Amino acid sequence: MKFLENYLDIVSQAIESHSFTQEPKNLYEPMNYILNLGGKRLRPVMVLMGCDMFDGDLQKALKPALGIEYFHNFTLMHDDIMDKAPIRRGLPTVHTHFNINSAILSGDALLIKSYQFFEELEPELFKQCISLFSKTAIVLCEGQQLDMDFEERKDITFDDYLHMISAKTGILGAAAFKLGAIIAGANPEEAKALYNYGKHVGIAFQIKDDYLDVFGDMSKFGKKQAGDIIENKKTCLYLLALEHANEIERNELLYWYNITSENVDKIYAVEKIFRRTKVDRLALKLIQEHNTIAQNYLKEINLPEEKLQPFVELANYLLEREV
Amino acid sequence: MKFLENYLDIVSQAIESHSFTQEPKNLYEPMNYILNLGGKRLRPVMVLMGCDMFDGDLQKALKPALGIEYFHNFTLMHDDIMDKAPIRRGLPTVHTHFNINSAILSGDALLIKSYQFFEELEPELFKQCISLFSKTAIVLCEGQQLDMDFEERKDITFDDYLHMISAKTGILGAAAFKLGAIIAGANPEEAKALYNYGKHVGIAFQIKDDYLDVFGDMSKFGKKQAGDIIENKKTCLYLLALEHANEIERNELLYWYNITSENVDKIYAVEKIFRRTKVDRLALKLIQEHNTIAQNYLKEINLPEEKLQPFVELANYLLEREV
Repeated sequence: MKFLENYLDIVSQAIESHSFTQEPKNLYEPMNYILNLGGKRLRPVMVLMGCDMFDGDLQKALKPALGIEYFHNFTLMHDDIMDKAPIRRGLPTVHTHFNINSAILSGDALLIKSYQFFEELEPELFKQCISLFSKTAIVLCEGQQLDMDFEERKDITFDDYLHMISAKTGILGAAAFKLGAIIAGANPEEAKALYNYGKHVGIAFQIKDDYLDVFGDMSKFGKKQAGDIIENKKTCLYLLALEHANEIERNELLYWYNITSENVDKIYAVEKIFRRTKVDRLALKLIQEHNTIAQNYLKEINLPEEKLQPFVELANYLLEREV
Repeated sequence: MKFLENYLDIVSQAIESHSFTQEPKNLYEPMNYILNLGGKRLRPVMVLMGCDMFDGDLQKALKPALGIEYFHNFTLMHDDIMDKAPIRRGLPTVHTHFNINSAILSGDALLIKSYQFFEELEPELFKQCISLFSKTAIVLCEGQQLDMDFEERKDITFDDYLHMISAKTGILGAAAFKLGAIIAGANPEEAKALYNYGKHVGIAFQIKDDYLDVFGDMSKFGKKQAGDIIENKKTCLYLLALEHANEIERNELLYWYNITSENVDKIYAVEKIFRRTKVDRLALKLIQEHNTIAQNYLKEINLPEEKLQPFVELANYLLEREV
């Protein structure tokens, strides 16, 4: 998509031109390191899209867009420590490449820097954006906590899961769109509608992520096939399967999810249960449903078709990906 | 000091009334835990003092004062992980009582919450305060990094040390005073003078801290006597001693600082070098000098004597303490 590439160019250039050169090096190097790992950089693009939609000044939205990207990278830095993740985007995570203390402190600094990216906005707008930003940031912390709690809990429902993924991932994209809209001067109702669009695309995206982990094409996906099953992650597929399984299937699933070692038999067995309980198709249906909800929110925004089109395309692009 | 107690009462009540009751419990409990460990709570008092000095509305400054206290506790939570500190204020640190992941994530949430405490200020003031707050927060991260770097480096000078302690501890008190002054509508020059007063009191306080660790009364101080020597900390006393020692003394000091085990001979030997190089007296002189600089900044503020008096008293109280 051409429009996506254009936005990405703007964002990438800006990230590069804002790389840290100051001292102490041990604080700033890990920040540059994670920002240069690349990643999809979709969240800052969402800020720009939200701004463009309402004919705002992209230059004005650019630094806040970077703020969102820096914030996102702060969450990755700290989440990777908590999840003991060795690899991020094909390279060692910050706490692996540097050390845990670096990942903690440089993460903190990245969070604070993300606030500073809003400082060129005029006071009224600054306050509005920072309030939304802080509120979103707290919900993300709650989401990460829920995610960690879920690992221990045996009683998670699919609704708990939806709540957790909204908090952990859906909300930041939603807030990114809304920030762009606010900076462009959109009215509160339309900014809210765009927020809800973003939230449901985010939920659909996360369900797709869970789906692809098991049913995606391993060679293109870049992650270990069925890593979620190996790690006994309570994904959308697992929770739906528990709800739709008969007694025997449920017991079999619980049996496999009590085994912690890497086991090919386990992957095949769990995948078979997922197919037998038809949760693969159910997941695809849910993705479609959330996409529809998202598109309906989009229609609440009183703008010509051409303004809405990039958002329809973005959602389709994200949700139809096979890798 | 009566005025200090009055402020402390206000702060303590406010902290109590703002304790977290929301979910997820695993996120918010560690935040309540550290806030209830008590501590001196001097930084929020400083916000109130700065506000009172310029006849500001204390109610307006109260939430920002809590923001400063929450922020301070966020730094403690994360610093304690980095320093592997088991005990804080006589009780287990957050990562010891809960776990490292809790201390990371609840610390993050505490930092974000500290930003939210400014949200009742009007936009102009909000922006001014948040900008100062973020700037200060980044300097604190830099200070913590320098402190960690110092542990590895062999070439630290006393000036490096001064720079580090200003960043790590002096600046937050300074910013606390200034925030109070700004909220009260003080003019920029006077707010700046109060900031500098706070900075130099903070430096003097830290030097006194180093001094008391070795030469204080163990039974009252509540820390392990000479813990800094045991841990080979490059304190003010150590760095001054290196600068004032002759060849033999310097070699002896370096010899002892290469030993990591807890060793009573070491404590006596190092203390003896400190006395022989007269750095105990030099430290006391430096404390007095920074107090004088602080008092001189205070005199730049064009207010009647009675308004300045609490600040003179506070500095004397902090710097004359024997424990």
